[in-house]
Amino acid sequence: MVKSPMSSSESGENECLSWAARDPSGLLSPHTFTRRSVTSDDVSLKITHCGVCYADVIWTRNKHGDSKYPLIPGHEIAGIVDKVGSNVRGFKVGDHVGVGTYVNSCRQCEYCNEAQEVSCVKGQVFTFNAIDYDGSVTKGGYSSHIVVHERYCYKIPVDYPLESAAPLLCAGITVYAPMIRHNMNQPGKSLGVIGLGGLGHMAVKFGKAFGLNVTVFSTSISKKEEALNLLGANNFVISSDHDQMKALGKSLDFVIDTASGDHPFDPYMSLLKIAGTYVLVGFPSEIKISPANLNLGMRMLAGSVTGGTKMTQEMIDFCAAHKIYPNIEVIPIQKINEALERVVNKDIKYRFVIDIKNSLK
Amino acid sequence: MVKSPMSSSESGENECLSWAARDPSGLLSPHTFTRRSVTSDDVSLKITHCGVCYADVIWTRNKHGDSKYPLIPGHEIAGIVDKVGSNVRGFKVGDHVGVGTYVNSCRQCEYCNEAQEVSCVKGQVFTFNAIDYDGSVTKGGYSSHIVVHERYCYKIPVDYPLESAAPLLCAGITVYAPMIRHNMNQPGKSLGVIGLGGLGHMAVKFGKAFGLNVTVFSTSISKKEEALNLLGANNFVISSDHDQMKALGKSLDFVIDTASGDHPFDPYMSLLKIAGTYVLVGFPSEIKISPANLNLGMRMLAGSVTGGTKMTQEMIDFCAAHKIYPNIEVIPIQKINEALERVVNKDIKYRFVIDIKNSLK
Repeated sequence: MVKSPMSSSESGENECLSWAARDPSGLLSPHTFTRRSVTSDDVSLKITHCGVCYADVIWTRNKHGDSKYPLIPGHEIAGIVDKVGSNVRGFKVGDHVGVGTYVNSCRQCEYCNEAQEVSCVKGQVFTFNAIDYDGSVTKGGYSSHIVVHERYCYKIPVDYPLESAAPLLCAGITVYAPMIRHNMNQPGKSLGVIGLGGLGHMAVKFGKAFGLNVTVFSTSISKKEEALNLLGANNFVISSDHDQMKALGKSLDFVIDTASGDHPFDPYMSLLKIAGTYVLVGFPSEIKISPANLNLGMRMLAGSVTGGTKMTQEMIDFCAAHKIYPNIEVIPIQKINEALERVVNKDIKYRFVIDIKNSLK
Repeated sequence: MVKSPMSSSESGENECLSWAARDPSGLLSPHTFTRRSVTSDDVSLKITHCGVCYADVIWTRNKHGDSKYPLIPGHEIAGIVDKVGSNVRGFKVGDHVGVGTYVNSCRQCEYCNEAQEVSCVKGQVFTFNAIDYDGSVTKGGYSSHIVVHERYCYKIPVDYPLESAAPLLCAGITVYAPMIRHNMNQPGKSLGVIGLGGLGHMAVKFGKAFGLNVTVFSTSISKKEEALNLLGANNFVISSDHDQMKALGKSLDFVIDTASGDHPFDPYMSLLKIAGTYVLVGFPSEIKISPANLNLGMRMLAGSVTGGTKMTQEMIDFCAAHKIYPNIEVIPIQKINEALERVVNKDIKYRFVIDIKNSLK
């Protein structure tokens, strides 16, 4: 391993172990680099866990053509504070802390001022593979520690397991934010969840916690028992079953679509009641809808992507208060290449979490 | 002219003069038929004016393949009450009254109960070319009188010209309802209006009355002066001008799209601020959007079609209170074939209104 140039006094404390992808094969292997020193507003945390998101596949494999190697993925980070800057008021050494999909923003624009940093005018800085405002490339949570401005850190209650907290930072907030924004938290209303992966299974859990009647739509009957018995959905529908779909016509108040692949929208749109809301959080290649489905039903299609700092903290606190935990499979970092391949093949229930603390040494 | 069978006592009062289309040529000519007698809950009005909507072209020319000839179009109806049923409490002889796009609904479902009859579970009954609950085919406002259940009649204030009231009943409510439903009535916010026909010019007027900063998008520079000087828009943009469009990126709170033809959505969608709302009231053949435009901007696309009885009355009262009048060109019924052709060619500023009272004799 080659160390970056640094002063001898920094070398010990700033050195960071990680696993990095080196090229578009996406294969990860051990890598050592240097994090910045803790400045006055920073929190340094010793990472204990990092969730595995499909974004990690996208960028380690250069699917968008903008990957900067060596690339250290991971934006569902949980850990324990080991150092704080002189101005930090919100955190102290020993606190349990999370870091999500972004680590910087301008902190001056109208969106930042509304704690909607994800929409920052100057641009949110993603947790990995982004150019930070100081020109450095951000490096994610498949690493031993991270240094982040306190604004982008979240408190994790001590009785909430750190390994469970990790997936909240992307999968959790991605479904929670639009559900709150579009009033999908009214008890007694009905919710359809399309796709039952990392995001979808959290949508089911939030839906149940909000008191909604939850119907899961899937292409695979194999998910039925878990959807109903493990996750507590009220209803399970195979989306290719025309009779089942037809029987649900105009019956749902809300739909949250977590499917990332291409799929038709109209069959689901027509299940919404008049003035119902359909939220898309996945990224299909295109959205196509029949105007009649939208206009005659006075329906609404909304998009969303993660959420601001205030809502992220609120979501973590909600999960702690309602004992909502993602379903996870904990793996050592040494299994990460295999795990990413399983993510590609959708062979995962429902989120991998890397045990950084015990395996990255 | 052949009279329908009726008792001699009914023949005089129920006989109705009209202009009807006879076949898919859509050509209209004089036609006499019989309206039902006034029952206990009905209002009969002597029609004074009827607005000309693009729907009149669609159904007189059998564009949807479901036209029932002879077909009497017209669903922007204004007139004066000449008879009321024994149970009618809301109207009396001499009142100025409007009738819009529907004349019946089940009056029992959740939507009817919320005065959202346009979404009636059993189905709203359109004002013309629809099968009413009694099996008869409805006949529209290109006629001398109409008999309607009082629930589907609206009061027009006496100082509001009947000729101006007519276009409110479809064009007006079609843009007013979604603007209210999606909170587009917050002073100081910005609104983009796509298309400057019957609907679009009303959207500009409502936008100004709500205190919005209004930008009109058009494909034709010829509409600029009227948009700014006659209708009072704040800004006019040629939608094919990339520089003008780019300069407006992420600047609008709302967009209302009244264009009925096919057009791209993404160029307009990207003009919306974060979490901005795009309302579609036109009927293009398909909606296609890039998910990134929706998701990353947390934007919302909503559809809408006319409005319920409560909101329709509210809209008429709003127009009267704020002295909002559609821009109209009044024509005698004898000019209707020429007028419909001009509607097809978009050669109209901004709504034709037929002077039924003085020309249909």
